[in-house]
Amino acid sequence: MKALRKARPEQGAQLESIPVPTPGPDEVLVRVRAASICGTDVHIYHWDRWSASRLHPPLTFGHEFCGTIEKVGSNVEGLREGEFVSAEMHVNCGRCLPCRVGQPHVCQFVKVIGIDQDGCFAEFVRIPARNIWKIDPAIPEHYAAIMDPLGNAVHTVLSGEIAGRTVAVTGCGPIGLMSIAVAKSCGCSTLIATEVNPHRRSLAKQMGADLALDPATDDVVGRAHEVTDGAGVDVLLEMSGHPTAIHQGFQMLRAGGRASLLGVSSQPIEFDLVADIIFKGVTVYGVYGRKMFETWHQMTELLKTGRLNLEPLFRERMPLDKFADAFTLLEKGEANKILFYPNGNPK
Amino acid sequence: MKALRKARPEQGAQLESIPVPTPGPDEVLVRVRAASICGTDVHIYHWDRWSASRLHPPLTFGHEFCGTIEKVGSNVEGLREGEFVSAEMHVNCGRCLPCRVGQPHVCQFVKVIGIDQDGCFAEFVRIPARNIWKIDPAIPEHYAAIMDPLGNAVHTVLSGEIAGRTVAVTGCGPIGLMSIAVAKSCGCSTLIATEVNPHRRSLAKQMGADLALDPATDDVVGRAHEVTDGAGVDVLLEMSGHPTAIHQGFQMLRAGGRASLLGVSSQPIEFDLVADIIFKGVTVYGVYGRKMFETWHQMTELLKTGRLNLEPLFRERMPLDKFADAFTLLEKGEANKILFYPNGNPK
Amino acid sequence: MKALRKARPEQGAQLESIPVPTPGPDEVLVRVRAASICGTDVHIYHWDRWSASRLHPPLTFGHEFCGTIEKVGSNVEGLREGEFVSAEMHVNCGRCLPCRVGQPHVCQFVKVIGIDQDGCFAEFVRIPARNIWKIDPAIPEHYAAIMDPLGNAVHTVLSGEIAGRTVAVTGCGPIGLMSIAVAKSCGCSTLIATEVNPHRRSLAKQMGADLALDPATDDVVGRAHEVTDGAGVDVLLEMSGHPTAIHQGFQMLRAGGRASLLGVSSQPIEFDLVADIIFKGVTVYGVYGRKMFETWHQMTELLKTGRLNLEPLFRERMPLDKFADAFTLLEKGEANKILFYPNGNPK
Amino acid sequence: MKALRKARPEQGAQLESIPVPTPGPDEVLVRVRAASICGTDVHIYHWDRWSASRLHPPLTFGHEFCGTIEKVGSNVEGLREGEFVSAEMHVNCGRCLPCRVGQPHVCQFVKVIGIDQDGCFAEFVRIPARNIWKIDPAIPEHYAAIMDPLGNAVHTVLSGEIAGRTVAVTGCGPIGLMSIAVAKSCGCSTLIATEVNPHRRSLAKQMGADLALDPATDDVVGRAHEVTDGAGVDVLLEMSGHPTAIHQGFQMLRAGGRASLLGVSSQPIEFDLVADIIFKGVTVYGVYGRKMFETWHQMTELLKTGRLNLEPLFRERMPLDKFADAFTLLEKGEANKILFYPNGNPK
Repeated sequence: MKALRKARPEQGAQLESIPVPTPGPDEVLVRVRAASICGTDVHIYHWDRWSASRLHPPLTFGHEFCGTIEKVGSNVEGLREGEFVSAEMHVNCGRCLPCRVGQPHVCQFVKVIGIDQDGCFAEFVRIPARNIWKIDPAIPEHYAAIMDPLGNAVHTVLSGEIAGRTVAVTGCGPIGLMSIAVAKSCGCSTLIATEVNPHRRSLAKQMGADLALDPATDDVVGRAHEVTDGAGVDVLLEMSGHPTAIHQGFQMLRAGGRASLLGVSSQPIEFDLVADIIFKGVTVYGVYGRKMFETWHQMTELLKTGRLNLEPLFRERMPLDKFADAFTLLEKGEANKILFYPNGNPK
Repeated sequence: MKALRKARPEQGAQLESIPVPTPGPDEVLVRVRAASICGTDVHIYHWDRWSASRLHPPLTFGHEFCGTIEKVGSNVEGLREGEFVSAEMHVNCGRCLPCRVGQPHVCQFVKVIGIDQDGCFAEFVRIPARNIWKIDPAIPEHYAAIMDPLGNAVHTVLSGEIAGRTVAVTGCGPIGLMSIAVAKSCGCSTLIATEVNPHRRSLAKQMGADLALDPATDDVVGRAHEVTDGAGVDVLLEMSGHPTAIHQGFQMLRAGGRASLLGVSSQPIEFDLVADIIFKGVTVYGVYGRKMFETWHQMTELLKTGRLNLEPLFRERMPLDKFADAFTLLEKGEANKILFYPNGNPK
Repeated sequence: MKALRKARPEQGAQLESIPVPTPGPDEVLVRVRAASICGTDVHIYHWDRWSASRLHPPLTFGHEFCGTIEKVGSNVEGLREGEFVSAEMHVNCGRCLPCRVGQPHVCQFVKVIGIDQDGCFAEFVRIPARNIWKIDPAIPEHYAAIMDPLGNAVHTVLSGEIAGRTVAVTGCGPIGLMSIAVAKSCGCSTLIATEVNPHRRSLAKQMGADLALDPATDDVVGRAHEVTDGAGVDVLLEMSGHPTAIHQGFQMLRAGGRASLLGVSSQPIEFDLVADIIFKGVTVYGVYGRKMFETWHQMTELLKTGRLNLEPLFRERMPLDKFADAFTLLEKGEANKILFYPNGNPK
Repeated sequence: MKALRKARPEQGAQLESIPVPTPGPDEVLVRVRAASICGTDVHIYHWDRWSASRLHPPLTFGHEFCGTIEKVGSNVEGLREGEFVSAEMHVNCGRCLPCRVGQPHVCQFVKVIGIDQDGCFAEFVRIPARNIWKIDPAIPEHYAAIMDPLGNAVHTVLSGEIAGRTVAVTGCGPIGLMSIAVAKSCGCSTLIATEVNPHRRSLAKQMGADLALDPATDDVVGRAHEVTDGAGVDVLLEMSGHPTAIHQGFQMLRAGGRASLLGVSSQPIEFDLVADIIFKGVTVYGVYGRKMFETWHQMTELLKTGRLNLEPLFRERMPLDKFADAFTLLEKGEANKILFYPNGNPK
């Protein structure tokens, strides 16, 4: 089968022909319908410091996808060939303390498919049966392909109360943009997005932001207090990882508010715990991955309502062999999702 | 001023002329713009057993309203004449244990304006300053008049998670209907309403219910499991107080689900704690009044989004002297809200 | 091996010799050190209506135990022969909605070892590897044998806040008694136990109850209000399943309190949802089994502190062939735990 | 009356004679029995940068105390002369958003008695009636004098689950030490305290710490993982405000754990949000003051159980005119509490 591989520990990738994997007794083989490119894949492609320290080539990468079950392992119950599925690509160990106390999403020994073992930029991918999530027929195929990052957004938004709450979203990359749509569909009130990139600000408005501000030129902290009668917003969704945005975000947040942090900084930042968290009595949630599988249930139900309009996020759909074009397009930072179709073109 | 009074402990009411009340140092006087009739007011009008045991005529009744501040007591800070307001009509004592530990909505010694002291079916009403809630200019006047029952609905819906959850609403009186609109605006998924009255079922659909079933003829429990792949719904909002509906509601609810109970039964019911709560690991919230004032904040923000369409709920608007017509209309059980305008007609 | 079996659908049990079970690839075989008799086992022994409807003889019963791993299935990781363990005997399906959203303790398709398949009243018992819980060396053997019911108590007590809270425990069977010790070790304040059996009341005091009242003769509701300055207790732990105790328990509970229900009634009861739950804004948790495996973690840590003194609960220790004596003793309702030692006497 | 005053914006304090204050209609006058010195008072005495920016001399300082009600304002209900009381010294505005949504402890416009208006280092102090907390007769006088800082400890410990949880306390000043006793009395499991001062480490052991480590010489992170089978502790209580301790504390904390932060850094610190919060899925609570008045209820009940042994914390008891000695002693950093007796010696 065709697979997009990091063959060697260096920049770039290779489209190779490798054997179709054989599922183990507790696994299934999935024929990939559509796979989406994550920012992490761009890092892997460019072989940044993190990639070099974590990955062991040769490896098929890619971890956002949907497809149909091609083969079912001998012990697997409840799954059948032909079913349309996506999958949680974080494979938890099941035995560490977080796994045992209901927090498998922060497993101490997690393995990520597409990072620690062969992923979904291929015609087929092998997945543990318990990581499979069946796709409700009401959910469009291209939405099913991005349930991994959408799950990040849903996990972040729903890590605390959101209905009837004012919100700031700092950072409008793909997951930030999705979180705007999710928060709005869950009854949040005034939502202020901050983002330096004008294209992304425009997308933020399309996703439902009431205000899309430029933190470089707008007084984002002042505006947040203005629209909340001086209190500050109830909820901060930090999606940028950028020190300035984090700093502004906490200043936009009201005393007693909650901050859910998903954005990843490249290094430690200077942070005022006293002013930003302690004296304001703020609750902070660190958000990693998706709750297994509560987030998937919530996400499925939200998608079924049809009120999540994610169309503005999608851009090119292309076959796997156009991968170089795809990564080039993504470097422009437009925050749109590109889909690969390893088994033939989209309908 | 004109006031609709229960003059004597008997059925009916009298429109009387009484002195305008004088606010105490910590109170304000509000000129009533619009007042809405609650089911409780219908009970008071008909002088049922509960009314006879609780009320001490003579009394001006009515406890749902909005208006403008006419006069401000000498100690009051932060309120000014002319401001457009509604009010929490449950006056908590501030000293009992629930009051002191952040649960004033279940104060052991609560006094209700319109039940224990003169209410809002009058040109003016006297309210403790701390019970006043200022109305955001984005909120229409007739919506401001029903924030008391809408707050019941918001309190019920938001007493647990709702986004991405399947829901059953048992009972479609006014608050049940409002809870449908609230749950939908807060991102709930499939919502099944049950109600015997066909007019109310029709309203339930208008408010956003995906299914509006007749519990007398439809297999409501079967349907709830059908649309949830056999699991049952995540959330039960019990708004009827009717034994059959309660029974069905808990059977519709999935293991591990939550039930929020607002509907008031007239007497104890037979209840299977083991099958309905214990073996299913269900969490039950008893809902009374509105959280002071968290519910008011959430409600205000939800109303500001403009996504709560409550128009189907409204029916006649009339002057106070047409009260007999109003109560006659409400006896038909149509679940629509009638508004009084004690100070002149609606704009 | 020797096994205590329900050979036929009738009263009594038989000590039989059956083959040692062979663990499957994902299972382990445990040599039973000590097994404890549950109230459910007494029902099975007497073959009550519930037993007749649920069990399919022949069956080895028993589901509370500890022992050492004798053999490890081929796929099992992280467990070794000779390790001292207990086990969660509720085997969840892993695929239903509750299982997938972090609530496996209310799995829709749970199988219970000792009820639905062969249990631990035998020299050996076969257990899925993921249900095994390793016993910390600080925990005494006889305590390890009762982690199943102790887990019920811990789950009930910790299903809400307990530190600095006043508590009522209605019903002092073994799990009720354990819950007293657990609540006290977790910083609860005044704890009132109610129980008709004087021996059990005496045990309740030994376990740490401040008051042990007889609901047949004492004014338990009055006393609860007396010791809480009229408010009622913060927390109700209902461990009896008895209609009168449930009724009294909710009357002892303060407005805004929480009730955790574990006791199982034999049939539906008359219940005043309005007075007991709705108007008081009470939160009710239905408690079933143990959280998998958060309760086991909490229980292990509590036991390690050494502050849980459960000694008053233990009575006879005996070999498996004295089973008839054991069940006869338990019929007296003394609420003490009897331990079987299928592989030889206790040290 | 005698009062210890900051007469001018400079170091030191003066014992002056000033008129006894007159309580307003909603206030009471309390005759101070015992007053305790807070670290903040030491800062005020030394007139550090924070004091210079916040205080407006002349001012009587002191905000930890107990005493008897001397006079009751005309509007006050539920309080009588002679009652033994303490008080919440944070006076919230009641009108800002946090106040209205049940978070008065983070009022945007809080005034602190003893900082923003005359405090309790005097024979009498004037307090709003709603801030008074009656002392249960079971609580010793000297414990009643330190309910303000004890409330900080209780608020911190109980801002998340504690029973059956492993804990790290970083920093053993008075509140850190109290939090050890509180956590232990609430059923926490292994508790590791870290503190550079050997006297304080010795006190930590007396308060119940299982391990009291020196972060300058011990491998505190290694030890925390050692005693938790490699997972890290469930709960971090950060009581130091010191950058190194904060850093170590988060490294001691397990994935999925909770960190409650009370310690106040003098300036922003370098912090790794990704490693310490986000990738570990940690929940962080900023803790300020005491929940009004849930913390007071919990604290009262914990004290009533008699299981909080705070005796090691107390040192000198002295009349107000020995204030210079008191502040000198406290500079040694021994983490013991000194009590003033403005109205005569302790019994």
